[in-house]
Amino acid sequence: MNNPCSPYHAAIELIGRRWTGALIMVLMDGPQRFSQLAVAVPGVSDRLLSERLKELEAHGIVRRTVEPGPPIGVSYELTAMGADLRPALSELQTWARRWLES
Amino acid sequence: MNNPCSPYHAAIELIGRRWTGALIMVLMDGPQRFSQLAVAVPGVSDRLLSERLKELEAHGIVRRTVEPGPPIGVSYELTAMGADLRPALSELQTWARRWLES
Repeated sequence: MNNPCSPYHAAIELIGRRWTGALIMVLMDGPQRFSQLAVAVPGVSDRLLSERLKELEAHGIVRRTVEPGPPIGVSYELTAMGADLRPALSELQTWARRWLES
Repeated sequence: MNNPCSPYHAAIELIGRRWTGALIMVLMDGPQRFSQLAVAVPGVSDRLLSERLKELEAHGIVRRTVEPGPPIGVSYELTAMGADLRPALSELQTWARRWLES
C-alpha cells in the first residue's frame, strides 16, 4: 500500500476537495436537481457548487442531464464510476462516526 | 447516507488535503522517520510535510516520537485511530485502480 504516486493519490485529493465528498454522498441517494443539491449541502455557494459539479462531470463521476420543461431543469446523477465509490465512502463514514463523533 | 454536515464531511476533507492521503498510506507500512517520509512522498516540501504531520498529530491520527540518539531522530506512526482508516483507504485504492488506471 505504499506508493503514494498513484491513482489512489489522485483519487483521494479529488474527492477530498472542499464540498466534493459531501456532494458525492448526497448523490448516492439518486439524481438531484441543482436546487436540491444547494439545499442538501448547506453552506456552499451556487458558484462553488456549480464548479464542483463541473469537475466531477469532467472526471466522469457525475452525469448532467438537461430535463425538458416546463420548467426546464438540470439534474445530476452519479455515473457507474461515481456510484462505485460507495464502499470507500461508506467505510469512511463508519470511521468518522467511530472516531469523530463525540 | 445523505447528511453532508457530518463527521464524514470533516473526515473526507481532512484526509483529502494535499499530501495527507498519501502520507497516511505510507504510514500504513509502519513507523517512519521524517527523512523516510520525505523520500516516500516525493514532491512534497519539508515545510509542507512537517505542517501536514502536525495536523495529523493534532487530530490524533499520527503519533510523533523523539527517538534517543545518536543520531537523535523523530519518527511518526499511525495511532489506532489512524490505522483504522485502512478499510476506507483500501477501498478507495481499489476504486482508483479500477477507474483511474489506464
